[in-house]
Amino acid sequence: MADFDLVIRNARCVTAADIFDADIGIKDGRIASLGQQLAAGKEEIDAAGRYVLPGGVDGHCHLDQPMSDGSKIADDFLSGTRSAACGGTTTVIPFACQMKGQSLRAAVEDYHLRAGDKACIDYAFHLIVSDPTPHVLTEELPALIREGYTSFKIYMTYDDLKLNDRQILDVLSVARDEGAMVMLHAENSDCIAWLTQRLLAAGKRAPKYHAASRPMLVEREATHRAIALAELVDVPILIVHVSGREAVEQIQWAQAQGLKVYAETCPQYLFLTAADLGIDEHAQHGAHQGAKCICSPPPRDAANQQVIWDGLQSGVFAVFSSDHAPFRFDDQHGKFITGQDAAFNQIPNGIPGLETRLALLFSAGVLSGRLDICEFVALTSTNVAKMYGLYPRKGSIAIGADADLVIWDTGLERIIRNADLHHAVDYTPYEGQRVQAWPRTTLSRGKVVADAGSFLGTQGHGQFLPCDLPAPAKPRVRSSA
Amino acid sequence: MADFDLVIRNARCVTAADIFDADIGIKDGRIASLGQQLAAGKEEIDAAGRYVLPGGVDGHCHLDQPMSDGSKIADDFLSGTRSAACGGTTTVIPFACQMKGQSLRAAVEDYHLRAGDKACIDYAFHLIVSDPTPHVLTEELPALIREGYTSFKIYMTYDDLKLNDRQILDVLSVARDEGAMVMLHAENSDCIAWLTQRLLAAGKRAPKYHAASRPMLVEREATHRAIALAELVDVPILIVHVSGREAVEQIQWAQAQGLKVYAETCPQYLFLTAADLGIDEHAQHGAHQGAKCICSPPPRDAANQQVIWDGLQSGVFAVFSSDHAPFRFDDQHGKFITGQDAAFNQIPNGIPGLETRLALLFSAGVLSGRLDICEFVALTSTNVAKMYGLYPRKGSIAIGADADLVIWDTGLERIIRNADLHHAVDYTPYEGQRVQAWPRTTLSRGKVVADAGSFLGTQGHGQFLPCDLPAPAKPRVRSSA
Amino acid sequence: MADFDLVIRNARCVTAADIFDADIGIKDGRIASLGQQLAAGKEEIDAAGRYVLPGGVDGHCHLDQPMSDGSKIADDFLSGTRSAACGGTTTVIPFACQMKGQSLRAAVEDYHLRAGDKACIDYAFHLIVSDPTPHVLTEELPALIREGYTSFKIYMTYDDLKLNDRQILDVLSVARDEGAMVMLHAENSDCIAWLTQRLLAAGKRAPKYHAASRPMLVEREATHRAIALAELVDVPILIVHVSGREAVEQIQWAQAQGLKVYAETCPQYLFLTAADLGIDEHAQHGAHQGAKCICSPPPRDAANQQVIWDGLQSGVFAVFSSDHAPFRFDDQHGKFITGQDAAFNQIPNGIPGLETRLALLFSAGVLSGRLDICEFVALTSTNVAKMYGLYPRKGSIAIGADADLVIWDTGLERIIRNADLHHAVDYTPYEGQRVQAWPRTTLSRGKVVADAGSFLGTQGHGQFLPCDLPAPAKPRVRSSA
Amino acid sequence: MADFDLVIRNARCVTAADIFDADIGIKDGRIASLGQQLAAGKEEIDAAGRYVLPGGVDGHCHLDQPMSDGSKIADDFLSGTRSAACGGTTTVIPFACQMKGQSLRAAVEDYHLRAGDKACIDYAFHLIVSDPTPHVLTEELPALIREGYTSFKIYMTYDDLKLNDRQILDVLSVARDEGAMVMLHAENSDCIAWLTQRLLAAGKRAPKYHAASRPMLVEREATHRAIALAELVDVPILIVHVSGREAVEQIQWAQAQGLKVYAETCPQYLFLTAADLGIDEHAQHGAHQGAKCICSPPPRDAANQQVIWDGLQSGVFAVFSSDHAPFRFDDQHGKFITGQDAAFNQIPNGIPGLETRLALLFSAGVLSGRLDICEFVALTSTNVAKMYGLYPRKGSIAIGADADLVIWDTGLERIIRNADLHHAVDYTPYEGQRVQAWPRTTLSRGKVVADAGSFLGTQGHGQFLPCDLPAPAKPRVRSSA
Repeated sequence: MADFDLVIRNARCVTAADIFDADIGIKDGRIASLGQQLAAGKEEIDAAGRYVLPGGVDGHCHLDQPMSDGSKIADDFLSGTRSAACGGTTTVIPFACQMKGQSLRAAVEDYHLRAGDKACIDYAFHLIVSDPTPHVLTEELPALIREGYTSFKIYMTYDDLKLNDRQILDVLSVARDEGAMVMLHAENSDCIAWLTQRLLAAGKRAPKYHAASRPMLVEREATHRAIALAELVDVPILIVHVSGREAVEQIQWAQAQGLKVYAETCPQYLFLTAADLGIDEHAQHGAHQGAKCICSPPPRDAANQQVIWDGLQSGVFAVFSSDHAPFRFDDQHGKFITGQDAAFNQIPNGIPGLETRLALLFSAGVLSGRLDICEFVALTSTNVAKMYGLYPRKGSIAIGADADLVIWDTGLERIIRNADLHHAVDYTPYEGQRVQAWPRTTLSRGKVVADAGSFLGTQGHGQFLPCDLPAPAKPRVRSSA
Repeated sequence: MADFDLVIRNARCVTAADIFDADIGIKDGRIASLGQQLAAGKEEIDAAGRYVLPGGVDGHCHLDQPMSDGSKIADDFLSGTRSAACGGTTTVIPFACQMKGQSLRAAVEDYHLRAGDKACIDYAFHLIVSDPTPHVLTEELPALIREGYTSFKIYMTYDDLKLNDRQILDVLSVARDEGAMVMLHAENSDCIAWLTQRLLAAGKRAPKYHAASRPMLVEREATHRAIALAELVDVPILIVHVSGREAVEQIQWAQAQGLKVYAETCPQYLFLTAADLGIDEHAQHGAHQGAKCICSPPPRDAANQQVIWDGLQSGVFAVFSSDHAPFRFDDQHGKFITGQDAAFNQIPNGIPGLETRLALLFSAGVLSGRLDICEFVALTSTNVAKMYGLYPRKGSIAIGADADLVIWDTGLERIIRNADLHHAVDYTPYEGQRVQAWPRTTLSRGKVVADAGSFLGTQGHGQFLPCDLPAPAKPRVRSSA
Repeated sequence: MADFDLVIRNARCVTAADIFDADIGIKDGRIASLGQQLAAGKEEIDAAGRYVLPGGVDGHCHLDQPMSDGSKIADDFLSGTRSAACGGTTTVIPFACQMKGQSLRAAVEDYHLRAGDKACIDYAFHLIVSDPTPHVLTEELPALIREGYTSFKIYMTYDDLKLNDRQILDVLSVARDEGAMVMLHAENSDCIAWLTQRLLAAGKRAPKYHAASRPMLVEREATHRAIALAELVDVPILIVHVSGREAVEQIQWAQAQGLKVYAETCPQYLFLTAADLGIDEHAQHGAHQGAKCICSPPPRDAANQQVIWDGLQSGVFAVFSSDHAPFRFDDQHGKFITGQDAAFNQIPNGIPGLETRLALLFSAGVLSGRLDICEFVALTSTNVAKMYGLYPRKGSIAIGADADLVIWDTGLERIIRNADLHHAVDYTPYEGQRVQAWPRTTLSRGKVVADAGSFLGTQGHGQFLPCDLPAPAKPRVRSSA
Repeated sequence: MADFDLVIRNARCVTAADIFDADIGIKDGRIASLGQQLAAGKEEIDAAGRYVLPGGVDGHCHLDQPMSDGSKIADDFLSGTRSAACGGTTTVIPFACQMKGQSLRAAVEDYHLRAGDKACIDYAFHLIVSDPTPHVLTEELPALIREGYTSFKIYMTYDDLKLNDRQILDVLSVARDEGAMVMLHAENSDCIAWLTQRLLAAGKRAPKYHAASRPMLVEREATHRAIALAELVDVPILIVHVSGREAVEQIQWAQAQGLKVYAETCPQYLFLTAADLGIDEHAQHGAHQGAKCICSPPPRDAANQQVIWDGLQSGVFAVFSSDHAPFRFDDQHGKFITGQDAAFNQIPNGIPGLETRLALLFSAGVLSGRLDICEFVALTSTNVAKMYGLYPRKGSIAIGADADLVIWDTGLERIIRNADLHHAVDYTPYEGQRVQAWPRTTLSRGKVVADAGSFLGTQGHGQFLPCDLPAPAKPRVRSSA
C-alpha cells in the first residue's frame, strides 16, 4: 500500500530559508514527509531537479468587490482564483469591503455569498473598514477578528472609503487590543483633490494626469502620518503598495527607530512607470491606452523603481503582492466607464496582476541575481502567510503544511500575452514583457490545479481559511523606559 | 532493519523560516528524512515537543591563536569546541592569523597543526590578513580562497594587525575578484592612540579608561570609512562586533543605499555596559575586576544596548557571534599579563562567550518576545553558515544537511556560573546572569556531544570544513546606470 | 542749531551682522547719521560703551484677542505694549483673529478698534484665518494683503480655529499668489483629542497631563504635513513655536532639500520643561500651580531644550518670539477659568513672556557664549522685521531706519520677579530666574519709552504699521528641472 | 575745510544684514560717517543709487606659492592682487606653505619675502601645515598664531602635503588650545591613488579621468573623517571647496548635531561640471582643453550644482571663495607641464578664479533671486573676515571699518573674456560666460584701485594684516552633560 497520496520526486525544494533536494510525500492534502527516496505514492510527479516552491500567497487582491461608482471588478472568485492558480498562487486574500453605512458583518456575509463555491484555491478575507462606528469598533470588529478575520485595510484616500485621523486611531486601537494587522493605503486625500481640481480646471484630463494628481509627496506625507498614528497607538502596521523613494525613506526611518512598520510593494512599481500612462495620449478616438496603467499610487520612474528593488533586497519590504484590481479596458464598467471623454479621475483605479506577479519577480528578481530564491519565497509566500495568520498552514514546504506547491520552469523564455492569461480582463499592462520563468505545475492541497499553462482545477475546491492572529504583531520589548 | 541511525521523535523543529512538528530521521550523520511517524532508528531520542534547532554556527571566535604580545588565548581547539558544544554550537570558525612578515599559507598550515585532531565539533577557518604583500594578494590569497578559506578579517586598529586604507582596498579587490567575504574590525587606530596617550599622561590607567579611549565616534568613523572603501571596490563586507547607535546608523545608511554591507553584533553589546569596566576600580590589591570585561569595541550603555536590540529586530544585523577571545583573569598571560599595575591598554582585549552566546540570546531575545525563534536561528546559525559558505551543509534542519542539532530546554531558570562552563577560562563576564533557556542535548553529525550539562563528545570527531564562496556575495544589479 | 533731535553718544552698536562704535544721530524719529563725534543733538544720551541694539520685534504675541471659550487675554494694547517696551521690544505683531463665520475684514476692523490709541510702541497685525470661505480666499485675503496685512497664521489644532488639509492648501495658494507669509501652528488635532479623551477617561485631569496629551510626535507629524503641503504649493512657510527634536529634524530635512521652511522658537522651550506642569500637582485646594506653564506645544525636557539651543546656533530657527498669550492665574477668566476642578484641557493655553523674552535670551544665549550678539539681534529683531515686511523701517541700526533702540545693561544680575514686570498678568513662569542682562533704556522712534525699569512712554504714541511683502518669500530658483 | 577725504554719495549700501541709502564719509582710509547729506569731502563719487558693498574678502587663493613638482603658480602678489581688485576683492588670504622638512616660521618668512611690496590690496596669510613636528606643534605654531597667523590649512591628500589622522589630531589640538581656525582639504588620498593606478594601468590618461579618479565618495569619506576628528578634539573646523551632495550631507549631519563644522564652496562647483574636463578629449595634437578645468575636488554634475546652490541658500556654507590656483595652460610649468602626453595625474591641480568669483555669484545668485544681496555680502566678505579674524576691520560697511568698498554695475550684460582679466593666466575656465553684474569701482582703504575695467591701484599699497582669533571659534556650551 502506498504511504502517500502523491510523491513529488527529485524536487529542488525552496523555503524562505532553505534550499534542499528531496522527495515530497503528500497525504491528505498535507506534506507528510520530506526525504530522500521516499516510499511510493499513489501518484507521482517527477520534478526532475526543478525548483519546487511553496505556492504564492497573494495578500492584496480585489475579487468581486462591490463598487460604489458604477465600475465593476472584472474577476470573481472563479476567474480570479483560476488566474491565480495558473500564475503559481495558491492562496488569495481579497477584501470584504464595508460600505459606509453598512454593517461590517453584513459586508462579510455578503462577501461569503459572492465567494460561494466558486474558488479553485484557498482564500481568506481581509476586511475593509470604511465606517468605524462605535458598534463596529466595540462589537463587530473584535468579534470578527476572533472569528478569523484578523487583518483589515483602511484608506487615507478615496471619498467612499477614507477615514480621518481620529477614525484611524480608533481602528488601530482595536487592532492593538485584539492583535490584528492593519494595512494602510497611504495617500493624502485632500492633496489629491486639490491637485485634481486644478488639473481639470486647466483642461488636463488625459490618463497621464492621474500621475500628476498623486505625486510622491502625497504618498510620503500620508506614510509619515500613518507611521505617527501607529506609533502613538503602539501597534504594528503594514503600508501597502509603496511606490518609491520618499515613502521608502519614511518607512526606513520608522524601522530604524524600532517601530513595527511593515511594507508591501507590487509589480507595477518595478515594471511600469508614469510614462506608461501617457501612451497614446493624443488618440482622437477611443480610450487612451494609458488608462490601462492607472492605479494608485501611480507608477513613478526608473529611479524610483531602483529604490523599490533596493528595498526588496535590503528588507524594507516584507511582502510583495499584486494589488490585483481588475477592470476591463473596453467596457463601460471598466477603464472606459464614462466613455472616451472621461477625465483621468473618472477612470477606475487598478490594474490586473494576479497571474503575472510571481513570474515577473522570479525572472527580474531571482534570475537576474537581485534577490536570492529564498527571499523570493519569503516575499511572495511565507511572510504573507505569517503576516496574515495563515502560517504554518500556508507559506512553506514543511511537515504538516498544506501541500500548496509550485513546480517552476526556469529554462524557457516566455512573452507575456493576455491571450494566455486566465483572468477575466481584456488586457494586461505587461503585454509583451519577456520572462525567463513560469510556473509549470501548481498544486493546491496536493491536487494539480494548473499544469503547462492549462487550468486543471475545480470550482469549489478552494476553502475559506479563518486566520490566526498575525505572527509579527508581537508586543514591543524595550530594556529601558 | 532500521531505516535510520537515529530518529529524534516529536521534535518542534525550527529553521530560519519555519516551525514544524516532525520526527527527524538521521542516517550517516545527515538528515535523511523529516516526517510524521518515521520508521524506526537504531537509536531514538524523544524530544517530547521540545524545540529542536540547527546547531549554532559561531562565525567569530578565537581559539589557540598565536599572540604577539605575550598574552595567551586560553582555549585551544579542544576546550574551545568542548565549550561550544555544551553551549549548543556545532560549528566554529576561528582565525588563521597571519603575522606581519609571515606567509599567509604558513599561517594556515600552522593553524591546522594547532587544530590537530583536537576538535570535538566541525570547524572552518577564517583568515586574518595583516600583511598584504603583492605575493599574498596575487598568489596566496586567491589560491587559499579556492581551497576553501573563503572569508578573511582585516583590522583597522591594533598595531600588529592593522591595514591602511590602501591595503584595505587591495584586499577588498581580491575579495571582489574571487567572491570572498571580508570581515572588518572598524575602529580608528590613530584616534585610539591619541586618546590613550592623553589618558595615560593624565594618570588614568584603570580598566574603565579602556572605554574612554575608544568612544563611539572612533567606531563610527571607521565604519563609515570601511563602507566607503567597500563601495569604491563594489564588494560586500561584513562589519563585525557593532556596539551601538552611531555605527548602526552608518550601516543603516549604507543598507538603505542598496550597498551590501552586512553587520554582526555580540552578546557583550546586549548584556554588558562600560560601567562593567569600572567594577572594583579602587581595588588596592590584585587586578581590577573590570579587566574581565575589556574588549574592543567596548560595551557602551543602556541606550546603545537598545539600539542593538532594535537592529536585531529590524534586520540591520545578519549574524550574532560571540567574538570569543578568551584570556584567563588570574594569569600572567591573561588579563593580569603585566601585573596589577598594568594600564588599561596593556590588558589583553577580549572576553569569553562561546558557551553562553546562544542561551543569553534565546532567553533575553526569544523568550522575552523581542525576536521570534526563526530570527534566532537565522542570526545564530543559518545566516552565519550562508555568509561563510558552509550552507547547506550547516545551518538548517533540511534534507541532506549535517545532523547538527540542538534540543533546547526552555522551562527552567538557570544561573550562569563559570563553574558550570567548559572553557579554559577562569571567569565569565556573565557570572550570575539568569537565563530561562539552555541547550539540553547537542548533536554533531548525528552524534550526541553534550547532554544535560555534560560534555559527551570525542576529541577528533570534529572535521575541518572547506568553505564554498559565501552566498550573499552576489553582484549588485541595477536596472539603470 | 542742533543737527539732530537726539544723539546717543559712544554706543557700541550691534546689528544682525556688525558691531561698531559710533554716535547715533536721530532726527524726526529716524536714524539720520552714524559716525564718530557727530554734531550736537537737542538731547543727548551717553551710552558709555554700552551695547545699543535695534529694539526687539516680537512677531508672535496675543493682545486683547477675543476668545470663544470664556477665557480672557489679560493684556490689551496698553498693558501689552507697555510691558514690551520695558522688556526692550519696540514693535509687536499681535493677531487679528477671524472667528468662524466672521468676515476677515470685520476681524481686522474690530481689532483696530481694540487697538484704538492704546499702543505705546508701534504695531502691525498678523491675521488668523479660521474660516477660508471662497469670499475670504478670493476677495478679502488678497485685498487685505495688499493693504498691509501680509502675514497670517493658520492652525492645525484647536476646534475653533483649525483648518483641514484642503483649507490649508487653499490658504497657502493665496499666500503664494500674493507673496504673503503663512505661519503654522503644527500639532495634530485628532491625536490630541484621542489622547485627551483617554486621559480624562482614566481620571488624569491634572495640568501635567496637558503635556501627556500633546507628545512630541503629535507636533512632528503636523510639522511634516505642513511642510508637505507647502512643498506642494511651492510657497514659503514659517512653523511657529517649535518645541524639540522631532519637529526640528523635520524642519532640517526640509531646509536641506532647499525648501523655504522657516522656524520660530520661544523662551518656554529653552527655560521650561514638562516637569514645570507637574509642580504642586497634589494640591488639595486651589488651582494647580502647574497650570501657569500650560501652553501648546508643551515644554519638553532638558534634551529637547538642548536641541532648541543647537537649532538657534546652527540657523534652523529664523526667529525667536514670545508667543505671549497672557492669562491671569487667579482669575475665573484665566488659568482658573472653570474653577479648581478644571481638567487640563479646560485651562487656557498660553503663558506671558513679552517682557522677559529678550533678557532671558541675552543672558543665557549671548552672555553664556551660545550665540553671538549679532545672532541675537537677527533672531529677535532683524529677521522678524524682514520676515513680516517691516524692514528696513524696523529691525536694524541703519540710516533711515526708525530710531527704535535699546541700550542694554549687562553688568548686573537681576532676578525676575513678576512684581517688577509691566504686563497685566499676576504671574510669570520665570519667577526667580536670574539674568545677567536687562534693557536699561528703550527708545521708540527716538523717544524714551522705558528707562531703568520704569515705563516712560505715552499711550497712543504707537502707530499701526502696514507691512510690505515679506523679504524671504522669494520664488524658488532651480538651475535644472 | 572738508570733513572727509572722500564722500561716496547716494550709495545703496549693503551689509550682511542691511540695505540702506546713505552717503559714506571716509577719512584716513576708514569709514567715518554714514548719513544722509553728509558734509563735503575732498573728493566725491556719486554712486547714483548703485549698490555699494564691502569689498570681497577671498579666503582661499594661492599666490606665488612654491610648488614641489616643477609647476608654477602663475600669479604673484602683484598680478594676483591686481586681478582681485578688478574683480571687486579687496583682501586676499593666500597660503604660507610649509614644505615637509621645512620650519613653519621659515615658510612664513619666505612668504613675506615673496609678498614683498607687491600687493595692491591688503592681505593676510593662512599657514599650510604639512610637517607637524613636535617643534612645530609646541613652539612655532602657537607663536605664529599669537603673531597673527590664526588660521591654517591641512590636507588629507597630496603626497607632499597630506597629514595622517594622528597628525591631524595633533594640529587640531593646537588649534583648540590657541583658538585658531583649521581649514581641511578633505579627500581620501589612498582611494585616489588606488583609482589612479587602475586608470593609468587601463590606459585612461586624458584629463577627464581626473574626475573619475576622485569620485564623490572619496570626498564624502574624508569629510566624515575630518568631522569625526574635530568632534573628538572638540574644535571648530572649516571644510574647504565642498563639491556636491554626499559631502554636503555629512556637513549637514554635523551641523544638526550642533558641531561647529563650517563649510566653503567655490565657483567651480556652481558653474563647471566634470563634462568640462572632457572637452576636446580626442585632440590629436596639443594639450587637452579639459586640463583647463582640472582642480580638486573635481566639478561634478548638474544635480550636485543644485545641491551647492541649495546649501548656499540654506546656510550650510559660511563662505564662498575662489580657490584661485592659477596655472598657465600653454606653459611647460602649467597645465602643459609634462607636455601633451601627460596623464591626468601629472597636470597641476587648480584653476584661476580670483577676478570672476564675485561677478559670477552676484549674477547667478543675487540677480537670479537665489540669494538675497545680504547673503551675498555675508558669503563673500563678512563671514570670511569674521572666520579668519579680520573683522571688524574688513568685511562690512560700518563706522570704523576700512573703506574697502565696491560700487557695482548691475544693469549691463558682460561676457567674460580672459583678454579682459588682469591675472597672469592665459585662460579662464569661464570664457564666454555671461554675467549681468560687474564691479565698477573698487576702493581699498578709500583709494580707488580699479574703475571701469581698468586697474588704477598702486603696487605696495596693500598691507599685511595680522589676524585676530576667528570670531566663530567660540567654545561649545551645553546646558547638560
